[in-house]
Amino acid sequence: MPNLSDKGVYLPPSPIRKLVPYAEKAKSRGIKVYHLNIGQPDICTPQVAVDAVKNISDHVFEYGHSAGNESYRRKLVKYYESVGIDVTADDLMITVGGSEAIFMAMTICLNPGDEVLVPEPFYANYNGFAMEAGVNIKPISSTIANDFALPPMEDFERLITPRTKAILICNPNNPTGYVYSEEEYAQLRDIVLRHDLYLMADEVYREFCYDGTQCISVMNLKGIEQNVVMIDSVSKRYSMCGVRLGTLVSRNKAIIAAALRMGQARLCPPYLAQVAAEAALDTPASYFREVHDEYAARRNCIVEALNKIEGVYCPMPKGSFYSIVKLPIDSSERFAQWLLEEFEYKGQTVMLAPATGFYASCYLGHDEVRIAYVIKREDLLAAAECLREALKVYPGRKTTR
Amino acid sequence: MPNLSDKGVYLPPSPIRKLVPYAEKAKSRGIKVYHLNIGQPDICTPQVAVDAVKNISDHVFEYGHSAGNESYRRKLVKYYESVGIDVTADDLMITVGGSEAIFMAMTICLNPGDEVLVPEPFYANYNGFAMEAGVNIKPISSTIANDFALPPMEDFERLITPRTKAILICNPNNPTGYVYSEEEYAQLRDIVLRHDLYLMADEVYREFCYDGTQCISVMNLKGIEQNVVMIDSVSKRYSMCGVRLGTLVSRNKAIIAAALRMGQARLCPPYLAQVAAEAALDTPASYFREVHDEYAARRNCIVEALNKIEGVYCPMPKGSFYSIVKLPIDSSERFAQWLLEEFEYKGQTVMLAPATGFYASCYLGHDEVRIAYVIKREDLLAAAECLREALKVYPGRKTTR
Ligand SMILES: Cc1ncc(COP(=O)(O)O)c(C=O)c1O
Ligand SMILES: Cc1ncc(COP(=O)(O)O)c(C=O)c1O
Repeated sequence: MPNLSDKGVYLPPSPIRKLVPYAEKAKSRGIKVYHLNIGQPDICTPQVAVDAVKNISDHVFEYGHSAGNESYRRKLVKYYESVGIDVTADDLMITVGGSEAIFMAMTICLNPGDEVLVPEPFYANYNGFAMEAGVNIKPISSTIANDFALPPMEDFERLITPRTKAILICNPNNPTGYVYSEEEYAQLRDIVLRHDLYLMADEVYREFCYDGTQCISVMNLKGIEQNVVMIDSVSKRYSMCGVRLGTLVSRNKAIIAAALRMGQARLCPPYLAQVAAEAALDTPASYFREVHDEYAARRNCIVEALNKIEGVYCPMPKGSFYSIVKLPIDSSERFAQWLLEEFEYKGQTVMLAPATGFYASCYLGHDEVRIAYVIKREDLLAAAECLREALKVYPGRKTTR
Repeated sequence: MPNLSDKGVYLPPSPIRKLVPYAEKAKSRGIKVYHLNIGQPDICTPQVAVDAVKNISDHVFEYGHSAGNESYRRKLVKYYESVGIDVTADDLMITVGGSEAIFMAMTICLNPGDEVLVPEPFYANYNGFAMEAGVNIKPISSTIANDFALPPMEDFERLITPRTKAILICNPNNPTGYVYSEEEYAQLRDIVLRHDLYLMADEVYREFCYDGTQCISVMNLKGIEQNVVMIDSVSKRYSMCGVRLGTLVSRNKAIIAAALRMGQARLCPPYLAQVAAEAALDTPASYFREVHDEYAARRNCIVEALNKIEGVYCPMPKGSFYSIVKLPIDSSERFAQWLLEEFEYKGQTVMLAPATGFYASCYLGHDEVRIAYVIKREDLLAAAECLREALKVYPGRKTTR
């Protein structure tokens, strides 16, 4: 039997996967598990999108354009206009989720062995795409002590080598909830210009900003138009993660042309998804207001509850629907497993994402977990209560000073 | 501005793309263009599938399992049983079209620089996936003189090097319409065993076999169970190319585990597609009979019409809905362009796929084109008539001996 390829052997599993069997066992013991671990919102998909799918009149679900249906791309241009991003339909490549856009961006911009700088903690699946593209991720540590602000210029400079080709950021951030400021973007622009790098920005959480925070798009940075690639997705915006539709956006014609050639190989993005997403562009503003208010309330409720627990620190994130939480524990992986395997409080427990999965530096994240506030407020509160009780009895508890 | 990666620069465009602007110009001059060039069937998607989509009752289009919904995989097992393939749900990885399955198979089984042997002419997009995976395709020429039968053992042996890791076949074949016999499969099995190779078979045209020909699945070869990867798709089977759903099938657990890890990075296959495809599994047998009879009639009609033209040879393909046709011309690319740019017959012309796009050996395919018989019979006949007239006046006509 022939060997698998190195990628076949070393492709990383989703870090939360290891915990799934423990969660299932807990449930089979009759324990209610609050899922703070995943980013699958419970928010309804906009009715206009659902209706569009229910009202399709096609008799053949045909292949479409490899860059996405023109009608969809044209309408998407208006959406971008509405959020202050000035692009044409030719700057857009419709992808199979933001996921495909990330993979395309890495494949098109970086040769195998090239390096991309990514502030850590970062979205764990960047690892998988980097490995598929043969690209090396060089993490730049951001810290909870700074609420995960962009690391200083010197940290970037120190890591840049002749093989560094790009910086990849996520804004608003998963897993930290951080939203970059104008000053931070100015710093990124300077580095990009000085070292002639690509700047890739994953903006799939654009709509999720709180306290009046503005999400600055990488598309609006001046003087680096040809260096910029933006990754977008309808997954979170319209709570339609399952349809699998995203966008790769760039004003660099060579990048879009290359993306189109990659896209031609895989033929086209999913048709029914485009029906849903095109219709979703007519989602009333009230939907977004409601979603925003719901998430803001959830955030306030869980962050407050967590910070009340002794030894726990949760920054107040400005965006997305995640936060990294610092816990008085020896190991986030051990703790997360213990919660599912050995703990219960009133027949309930919590599933957390150990932050180690979001750090490339293996010495980081051991006393941090990521939470997603995509469940109802009463459940968030119940989960925080469980956590409080769990920390009282967890054998790996550390006393804080 | 930083350079693109080598892949970004060299990823091949779809070979037919070059002709598209000429087809558009012809249409804008009021000329009717018969499309013999593409594999987008005009057959209706089964009504059960369309209805399932119209009747969805979900409020949230959620992420699903990375390997595809379990209900779908379980039902798919029964479909495979019905076509004589014995697999379990754990042997299946649901993919974004057969396309993703091809890319996954290459990435998981071959390291960059490794070689995969592919009988040519072959499905042109294998080139794109191979380049993305960093894998080298080594073509083994099959010829129209042999109706594109599997090349002899010696041809394989001659090409095998220490870097050869796999053989990729397509059965029934696009672009040739050839269906491999039991003897040919025995030969493949011998080579695979002797050199410890993977055998990848693209069987997306399984349902399209004529004259009582049986499509043997690679999954039924004995003694090489761990070497075999099958690529499948609902695109053609149910004429729902746009939904983007396929399957990677293997009894080799390491391959499926690696595919799942790749699948976890991109989260899940499209949800609405799975709704359609799961329902499509209940398509009545009458649908397939009708489709079969329609394609068989189309094939007979176009092959007969083409073979009546002086200097033209079209084998009688046993499967898929393509055939390679030999024409008395200097250059298939020039001819195809000339048909769109300079020719018309009664206000009509034909769009063909130059066979050069399907050969990796650049000296092959210059007097061959691929046709797809996915349009109505009267249109096929009109197209053949155009072609007959075109060959009378084409300046690059060769006299046949
Ligand atoms: C930061 C980030 N980027 C990209 C994605 C990919 O999402 P999708 O492929 O559903 O668009 C996710 C999903 O959770 C994410 O959190
Ligand atoms: C031989 C072959 N394999 C694979 C595919 C990919 O199809 P899909 O990704 O739609 O399943 C095609 C499409 O034309 C094909 O002809």
